[in-house]
Amino acid sequence: MIDVRMRGFRDRAEVAAVERLIDDRLQPLPAESIALTMAAGRVLAGDVIAAVAVPGFDRAAMDGYAVRGHETFGADPYSPLEFAIVGQALPGRPFAGAVGAVGAGQAVRIMTGAPLPDGADAVVQAEAAAEVEGGAKVRITEPVPPGRHVGKRGEDIEPGSPLLPAGRRLRPQDLGVLASVGASPVAVRRQPSVAIVVTGDELLACGSKPAGFRIVDSNSVMLAALAARDGAAATRVHMVPDRYDAVRQALQDAAEDVILVSGGSSVGQEDHAPRVLRELGELCIHGVALRPASPTGLGFLGPRPVFLLPGNPVSCLCAYDLFGGRAVRRLGGRPAALPYPTQVLPLARKIASLAGRVDYVRVRIAGGQVEPLAISGASILSSTTRADGFVIVPAELEGYPEGASVLVYLYDG
Amino acid sequence: MIDVRMRGFRDRAEVAAVERLIDDRLQPLPAESIALTMAAGRVLAGDVIAAVAVPGFDRAAMDGYAVRGHETFGADPYSPLEFAIVGQALPGRPFAGAVGAVGAGQAVRIMTGAPLPDGADAVVQAEAAAEVEGGAKVRITEPVPPGRHVGKRGEDIEPGSPLLPAGRRLRPQDLGVLASVGASPVAVRRQPSVAIVVTGDELLACGSKPAGFRIVDSNSVMLAALAARDGAAATRVHMVPDRYDAVRQALQDAAEDVILVSGGSSVGQEDHAPRVLRELGELCIHGVALRPASPTGLGFLGPRPVFLLPGNPVSCLCAYDLFGGRAVRRLGGRPAALPYPTQVLPLARKIASLAGRVDYVRVRIAGGQVEPLAISGASILSSTTRADGFVIVPAELEGYPEGASVLVYLYDG
Repeated sequence: MIDVRMRGFRDRAEVAAVERLIDDRLQPLPAESIALTMAAGRVLAGDVIAAVAVPGFDRAAMDGYAVRGHETFGADPYSPLEFAIVGQALPGRPFAGAVGAVGAGQAVRIMTGAPLPDGADAVVQAEAAAEVEGGAKVRITEPVPPGRHVGKRGEDIEPGSPLLPAGRRLRPQDLGVLASVGASPVAVRRQPSVAIVVTGDELLACGSKPAGFRIVDSNSVMLAALAARDGAAATRVHMVPDRYDAVRQALQDAAEDVILVSGGSSVGQEDHAPRVLRELGELCIHGVALRPASPTGLGFLGPRPVFLLPGNPVSCLCAYDLFGGRAVRRLGGRPAALPYPTQVLPLARKIASLAGRVDYVRVRIAGGQVEPLAISGASILSSTTRADGFVIVPAELEGYPEGASVLVYLYDG
Repeated sequence: MIDVRMRGFRDRAEVAAVERLIDDRLQPLPAESIALTMAAGRVLAGDVIAAVAVPGFDRAAMDGYAVRGHETFGADPYSPLEFAIVGQALPGRPFAGAVGAVGAGQAVRIMTGAPLPDGADAVVQAEAAAEVEGGAKVRITEPVPPGRHVGKRGEDIEPGSPLLPAGRRLRPQDLGVLASVGASPVAVRRQPSVAIVVTGDELLACGSKPAGFRIVDSNSVMLAALAARDGAAATRVHMVPDRYDAVRQALQDAAEDVILVSGGSSVGQEDHAPRVLRELGELCIHGVALRPASPTGLGFLGPRPVFLLPGNPVSCLCAYDLFGGRAVRRLGGRPAALPYPTQVLPLARKIASLAGRVDYVRVRIAGGQVEPLAISGASILSSTTRADGFVIVPAELEGYPEGASVLVYLYDG
């Protein structure tokens, strides 16, 4: 590859080719074993099979009285049936009567979740029963067939049954299910670490006030939040001056799974990152047929991807979401696709584009229609805060006519 | 309010009444000031107005050469125009020529983001220029009208303009915009802290293996993940035995903004939480016309809400999402509504319900249709891992017929 500095990009790679390169070169990271209490949102590394039944025993599904169901037939509010209360069963504290089982005409006071006593096969709920004679007996006003209000052993989970598949992003209730079968620790994909290398002599650190001809770095805080959204473990921000040796040192020092370089990626004389990457590893892509992120590069340091993201904040957002984020998501075992909710809506005004180039068009949604934002400048980050989302115009189209149904990616979930 | 233990609920509160009570009693927590680097996903406490212009000066939008635009008219590849290179402008390092301005026939080598030198009003991009005579001159092959490839002062953000409204949940790019105007620290809503009090003698801590008649607590790990999703700051899990004094002590000790009690909330003799809450504060609701979460309670300790959630895990999930989560979301300044993406789809099979009761029905989506899951037991947590989401049947309906269009809340975002 030749040096493109100050000469412009000759051939720009197609967006689809960059995506293929990412997918081909990157596989999900190895598994690690973590406590279930830390596993919300993590990605299962393997299928989980239930080792035990849940529940492990027949149990009451209601508060009430455990009885032999057929003995309750005929009970109603006008002719209640009486049973002798011979004990009680509480969760974790089963009934332990003298004979160990519920006999004819007997009932055991039982709480939801308590083991069903031997002999009993149904539960009369508290609402259909009233204790009398100081709790010695209970009057039942509703019949319950055998099995009623009883949770059978294994009714939730059968031992040996597949519980959750590899690749599952763990929902809150998944954690509950895994806890109930004792599946902690759990094997999940390791989360990729991300280095964010920000170049630019003009940049002040996030948190500073802009002053004179110096501006505040806005990309690192945005990239850190995007990477965290995509499942990155830790992000480290490293600000370096626009000097060849500083950029080289920063890339040599970066031990992270993914390296995002913001700025210095284009063809200007201060754009050292492409040269450094070519020297230290591979520069596979430099220049992408993508508006507004054409000065994007992708290479590798050994197996680890390095993304050269444009310094312009909108381009940076676009290039991260399409490429850098794809790598973070893929390494962490998440779906590679853009992690935004989508909606199909009609276009209020046409979108013009060039064939052969993918366009990332910020849009607003008003009155159920999609309005492209007039401001297309790559430096206008506020356009992405005013926008509700974006539309991707594929390379094979020259835009979309007014009224066309388009897929909108919504910034807010 | 009377003691309902072992007598069942007389009147169950309507779901809408519980929601109204939450909305009436709870207001967003006060603001706190945090560093922008910590603010992803946080909720803005007030409107943010830009204090400065972004950019703060006219700057190059491309790498290339700053010139007087009208002097380039007529340039084309066959008759390029030559300009004398009199210096360069880099980001943060403006052009400082002897006369301080770009004169007739002169050009300044300029990088994207560099301040536009005085005298110049346009930038010729690098691709339309070639340096000659060892960099003393540049040949320009494309005309640029004044203003071309120049980012004007304030073109992204005008000083005094409203940037982001109060209540905004900060997107990654919002952080970038706030960084660029130097708005760090930023005032956001304090995140509510949440205590999770789990009662049950039969329960083993999450991470244990189920053994004998003891089962593993699955609600606390689920509730902690749900609360974190809804913006809770920290959650603390406290497991207590089914004893009046232990439950009382746990509620007295809980200093958190929201208290979730899992289990012991119903009308069984071991259900101490309602009585304790009535004694220590207020028990406003006990029993809700909601399936499968009817044994739900809501009260307050001073201003702090206490939710009595059923121990059955599906009921617990349902009651948290509708009520407990609503409180967490509201206190943190988020929208009170359920935080799931939704889709309207036709029902593959009818859903039966009772008028006067809200039903939470787990469903799968197959072939673009909504299939209610046959298993309706409140204890079958695995039904919520097999389900794609749920449908809420409002109190005024007796279910939905086959083919009806229903709103599905999707568990996965």
